[in-house]
Amino acid sequence: MTEHRIYNFNAGPAALPLTVLQEIRDAFLDFKGSGMSITEISHRSKWFEDVINDAAARMKRLLHLDDRFTVLFLQGGASLQFCMVPMNFLTGGQSADYVNTGTWSTKAIKEARILEKTIRIAASSEEDDFARIPKDVSFDDQAVYAHITSNNTIKGTQWERFPDTGGVPLIADMSSDILSRPFDPGAFGLFYAGAQKNMGPAGVCVVVIRDDFLERVPESLPSLLRYSTYAAKNSMFNTPPCFAVYTVQLVLRWLEEDIGGIEKMAQVNRRKADLLYQLIDDSEFYRGTAARDSRSLMNVTFRLPDESLEKTFVQSALENGMGGLKGHRSVGGCRASIYNPTPFSAVSALGAFMQEFERRHG
Amino acid sequence: MTEHRIYNFNAGPAALPLTVLQEIRDAFLDFKGSGMSITEISHRSKWFEDVINDAAARMKRLLHLDDRFTVLFLQGGASLQFCMVPMNFLTGGQSADYVNTGTWSTKAIKEARILEKTIRIAASSEEDDFARIPKDVSFDDQAVYAHITSNNTIKGTQWERFPDTGGVPLIADMSSDILSRPFDPGAFGLFYAGAQKNMGPAGVCVVVIRDDFLERVPESLPSLLRYSTYAAKNSMFNTPPCFAVYTVQLVLRWLEEDIGGIEKMAQVNRRKADLLYQLIDDSEFYRGTAARDSRSLMNVTFRLPDESLEKTFVQSALENGMGGLKGHRSVGGCRASIYNPTPFSAVSALGAFMQEFERRHG
Repeated sequence: MTEHRIYNFNAGPAALPLTVLQEIRDAFLDFKGSGMSITEISHRSKWFEDVINDAAARMKRLLHLDDRFTVLFLQGGASLQFCMVPMNFLTGGQSADYVNTGTWSTKAIKEARILEKTIRIAASSEEDDFARIPKDVSFDDQAVYAHITSNNTIKGTQWERFPDTGGVPLIADMSSDILSRPFDPGAFGLFYAGAQKNMGPAGVCVVVIRDDFLERVPESLPSLLRYSTYAAKNSMFNTPPCFAVYTVQLVLRWLEEDIGGIEKMAQVNRRKADLLYQLIDDSEFYRGTAARDSRSLMNVTFRLPDESLEKTFVQSALENGMGGLKGHRSVGGCRASIYNPTPFSAVSALGAFMQEFERRHG
Repeated sequence: MTEHRIYNFNAGPAALPLTVLQEIRDAFLDFKGSGMSITEISHRSKWFEDVINDAAARMKRLLHLDDRFTVLFLQGGASLQFCMVPMNFLTGGQSADYVNTGTWSTKAIKEARILEKTIRIAASSEEDDFARIPKDVSFDDQAVYAHITSNNTIKGTQWERFPDTGGVPLIADMSSDILSRPFDPGAFGLFYAGAQKNMGPAGVCVVVIRDDFLERVPESLPSLLRYSTYAAKNSMFNTPPCFAVYTVQLVLRWLEEDIGGIEKMAQVNRRKADLLYQLIDDSEFYRGTAARDSRSLMNVTFRLPDESLEKTFVQSALENGMGGLKGHRSVGGCRASIYNPTPFSAVSALGAFMQEFERRHG
């Protein structure tokens, strides 16, 4: 059976590995001989326990997490983390530092403020229209944590190296670049990522928490808003989003066994991004919107000479089997999101299309 | 392609209509000609907007909701509602009434108390080991709402008729019997249901809210914990659990178009439950655990003469292609969950097996 498939450059939900999708499809009516769909089995069954335990174990191996870290599966997306983080860690009037690098950082800051928590904006690139990542940020050594957004999908910027906080534990929203490259997890008290970009479908958010942060969680919060609830019950205090966790498990297996880990993945991601940025830099037709030293390897944002041409570009790309190239509705322009599951061949095809489009319209 | 399939009596996640599962499978690599999986399309696309709008519209038609009601799709399951309800509606020191009919009611009460909200237990059947639904409950006419659990999966009890609150708006956890029978929604300020029993997979919770309750939501809560956030953004303030919403849409379409609505569904559900209760009542081998006037049409709980026989029963049933018959780990015994998607033929097969088992072991 061959299906019509496009090259998918969506910003999230985004492309998934074809082999993963095929495996889900083929097992959909009878999961591992259970005679039930993955959507019909009990989360208390051995079948599902194997799924969630394997997903957590693969996450720990892929990210090189030591025993201080626990992998949790939550619902509510990264957006729920924007309030859970300050609720869990800013309990005694202490302060946290936030770096504002765009829309998602701004939302995280907004939720901390709604909760009337004490936070300080350690740095912001808002004056530069978020086109770059701030440099040489000074952090408050009394801060409980320093919150950053590791990659910014809308403006296409990314922390090339995580900032030196002078010992303040980092907390990061890694929704759009988790598992895309190696990093030292030791600097982090917690990081979180909605699955729907680099590792699965919408509906599950992975949270990685270090034991000293787990110990800070107050008892006074509602159960579902306390990290300790999930840690104590292997993320199954209540029914987890089973299908989403299962898909994440398969994507992590693909990353570990088919790709060979995040070091190998990072090489592929670098090649994919280099191809597009090189093309943009060599062109006077396409113009990158992010500062060169802050460019994202996940979301390549660019403009064409005018909005009418951008519209034609997106439409023509779709007719050529390439979807999701429209920029975020808040900023316009064009954007190619090239997360882990997007193969080099898709990026290569996009590059060829861009060159041909420039030749015809440039 | 014929797969091995069992009769699935799981308490949740639970059986789904086979035709729905087949449709998901067949479209899994190419959703509506998009060239993408439902797990890969943008929630901002026309494709997904059609899904979520159709799901909400079907819910309104099936439940006969007038224009005062809004249908929302949230994450976090019913368990997150246990804290969201008091956070959103008990804001000015007012009080709410709760009726305690079992484990899930107890959890809802616990979360309100963690939040230090003023609540009153209007009635409880805890002294009767939750084997019945309280009768003639008096409600506080100053209560902001009266919270009930419409069906209790663990002890197998269900409100046959919803209580007369004397005008106090009801709020109900309907996770385990929503859409299983008609009811008058006019008495409710809000009701909610995790999808994974009567209408879909785990990972989405449907909330139906009346406009006067929507107006009470305070601005001071984090965005994701405010019902008004979801209402203002068609449940897409942030990325919704797209796959789960899509599956719910298909189950609602099945209920509306294949079954013919909840009135028809209620007739089938009544026949299914009657078959099992009649068998239990006619037997001296099987013993129902719920009071007769409080019996659930969704979860038929029963005991055998001893625990060893119960173990044999569950094992033998599984060997005969019937799964999920073990009672909840907190109470033991046996339980057949027979939600909407469980066909009469499955219940009929279970009845035949129970009679045969009694003949051999009775």
